[in-house]
Amino acid sequence: MDKRVAIICIGNEILAGKTIDTNSVYISRKFAGTNYKVVFKAQIGDSADEIRNTLNFALKMADIVFTTGGLGPTFDDITKKTIADYFGLKLILDENLLGKTKAFFQRMGVGMPESNISQAFIPEGAEYFENPLGTAPAIKIGNKEKTVFLLPGVPREMETLLEYILRSLEIGKENIKTIRIFGMPESVIQEKLDNYIGREKIYMALLPSYRGVDIRFYGGGKRIEKLINKIRDMFGDNIYGEGDILIEEVVGRILRKKKFTLSIAESCTGGLVSHLITNVSGSSDYFIGSITAYHNGVKMNVLSVNEHSLKEDGAVSEVVAREMAIGVKNALHTDIGISTTGIAGPTGGTKEKPVGLVWMAVADKKKVNVEYKVFSGEREDIKFKSSIYLLNMLRKFLEVKE
Amino acid sequence: MDKRVAIICIGNEILAGKTIDTNSVYISRKFAGTNYKVVFKAQIGDSADEIRNTLNFALKMADIVFTTGGLGPTFDDITKKTIADYFGLKLILDENLLGKTKAFFQRMGVGMPESNISQAFIPEGAEYFENPLGTAPAIKIGNKEKTVFLLPGVPREMETLLEYILRSLEIGKENIKTIRIFGMPESVIQEKLDNYIGREKIYMALLPSYRGVDIRFYGGGKRIEKLINKIRDMFGDNIYGEGDILIEEVVGRILRKKKFTLSIAESCTGGLVSHLITNVSGSSDYFIGSITAYHNGVKMNVLSVNEHSLKEDGAVSEVVAREMAIGVKNALHTDIGISTTGIAGPTGGTKEKPVGLVWMAVADKKKVNVEYKVFSGEREDIKFKSSIYLLNMLRKFLEVKE
Repeated sequence: MDKRVAIICIGNEILAGKTIDTNSVYISRKFAGTNYKVVFKAQIGDSADEIRNTLNFALKMADIVFTTGGLGPTFDDITKKTIADYFGLKLILDENLLGKTKAFFQRMGVGMPESNISQAFIPEGAEYFENPLGTAPAIKIGNKEKTVFLLPGVPREMETLLEYILRSLEIGKENIKTIRIFGMPESVIQEKLDNYIGREKIYMALLPSYRGVDIRFYGGGKRIEKLINKIRDMFGDNIYGEGDILIEEVVGRILRKKKFTLSIAESCTGGLVSHLITNVSGSSDYFIGSITAYHNGVKMNVLSVNEHSLKEDGAVSEVVAREMAIGVKNALHTDIGISTTGIAGPTGGTKEKPVGLVWMAVADKKKVNVEYKVFSGEREDIKFKSSIYLLNMLRKFLEVKE
Repeated sequence: MDKRVAIICIGNEILAGKTIDTNSVYISRKFAGTNYKVVFKAQIGDSADEIRNTLNFALKMADIVFTTGGLGPTFDDITKKTIADYFGLKLILDENLLGKTKAFFQRMGVGMPESNISQAFIPEGAEYFENPLGTAPAIKIGNKEKTVFLLPGVPREMETLLEYILRSLEIGKENIKTIRIFGMPESVIQEKLDNYIGREKIYMALLPSYRGVDIRFYGGGKRIEKLINKIRDMFGDNIYGEGDILIEEVVGRILRKKKFTLSIAESCTGGLVSHLITNVSGSSDYFIGSITAYHNGVKMNVLSVNEHSLKEDGAVSEVVAREMAIGVKNALHTDIGISTTGIAGPTGGTKEKPVGLVWMAVADKKKVNVEYKVFSGEREDIKFKSSIYLLNMLRKFLEVKE
């Protein structure tokens, strides 16, 4: 049966705009495509009145309420006490939890501060999930109809504890399948899926972003397995990965497996492709280096781009993208070289070469693939979209190449 | 007198986690340090019931409510109608607005779609603010005690219209002063300010981020002016800018003014410094290029780092940072060269050189400044923090240099 979910993030810093509430987005995304529907999210301050009123309001709309924040040991952490009071429950010292909290500080080589005792108190009859990364456990209060889960506000602790809770609700990672697609608009994917799935009831969501579109399925069993196999056939080469993997990790894995090295020549992306590649831990195994050639002098002197090409075709052109990819591959002695050259804007566009036009190339010692696209958006959007596009070109190049 | 503010973001995509609600963070930050206090934020779906209930709930806590989203021309855009109903107001066609909407489409070279007529209807007696970037105006409904502002959900349109509204509330840009500080923790800044300001009532907020700490003041007049001058003296060189300016824009302005060119050699930051520099439109005036030298071969062959330095001191060392900065300056023929070399983690740390250790250098033809820091956090945090640190080193280097 479908359940309605509300999320309440508690903390003065969030209201002041000091901290961005990434927690509620993270939690929302976890429910996408499941039989749990997020219907309400709120951010409030560390005030007992506001917690009580907002919880009351949320419980009218939702079956399950998640709160984040306010579980720390200091005087302004009042979430647990306030919600226990709301349900008429006493807080009781849990000896097991107290032992765990003391052991946590012991591992850090210090004694437990007096104030942390408060974190070992649990509302009467409530369940809790131990926190492997900190001292605030997640707490579950409620009955068959309404449940409240209290989570700490520190993102990594929240994410870890949430995974335990999702598993207890049977929507843990093992019940979610994600197919990641690049190069196809959401509407086209939707249409293809509609035609295939028809009126069958499937828990599914499409999540678009600059990185492509994710198709998210909930539930296991043969029916879903069969559907996913069909989708793999249907979208073929447009699928760049499954699960949480990023395109920069996908290309990293292929490069490592094939024992290929990579270098990058960037103009309009200005270092972003290289930044993305090096966000992957262990990328030094295959990534040798990159050249950001903003000035034409660098294109000529370091990347050996032909002066004639720059004069005849201009820096933003097929031939220059090609020569940059080959040039960086040779200059840094790698198996593969990739490149971008384009107009990130907002100025510098012309009728023939508008803002957003980007030429991209992938080269090895035998061949070069070159493509262009006109991307929309602001300067940073264009940089990001073209970087992701190039990484996907690289993936396709590597997958075909034998 | 102090006012209480609530923000309600309306849209199914936000609840599904498809779109991140950046609007409420943007609005919150605008009120930081003013006499307006954000007390409640919520995200709800495009449902009349939820809009009505949440507005009702928000109006109990707040004097002013902002809504974003649901002002488009399609059937699921129900915010305006629902809120007008809530206040018992009819929607009336505004001929002036209709003319403006038609003109908007004319400028785009197309006729106005039928459905856009709905956007020219305004609740009886309500004020509106024309939208220079789109067809959904901002609308103000209310009386002396309670006011609701309806804003479109498209961020750029929302931001522009919000500025008009803030100005009408006398907290527009001209009433806000921001001093941006780097290299000093929030607690130290707070203490210095407390000692100076004492018990005087000042509207002020501290907003920390990886980019440093912003001190935000609200209100004009001689008292604030005097205070700000004192703060300029008090924090001196730690102030990198005032207003909204970013460190990459600050160094860009100085480089342009001094007619200096810049090149960058990156190891652990992997292209991020270059990415930040090139996010600034017009950076091609002073930025020539960068080398990401992940592999030691690139450090030696392209940046002329000494093999002996790499062997004796290791890639993460003072001498290599120094040689990289000088090397890139010479290789790309620029006035200034800057560099990073460090351990971004999560692997690769040792007792002597832990994860987070980064050496950074700034060189011109006469001198080289080298510093190191041990940054905390995940791989991407360390990359970002060291990039910002280096840009601030560059700023100080350029400001001193004559």
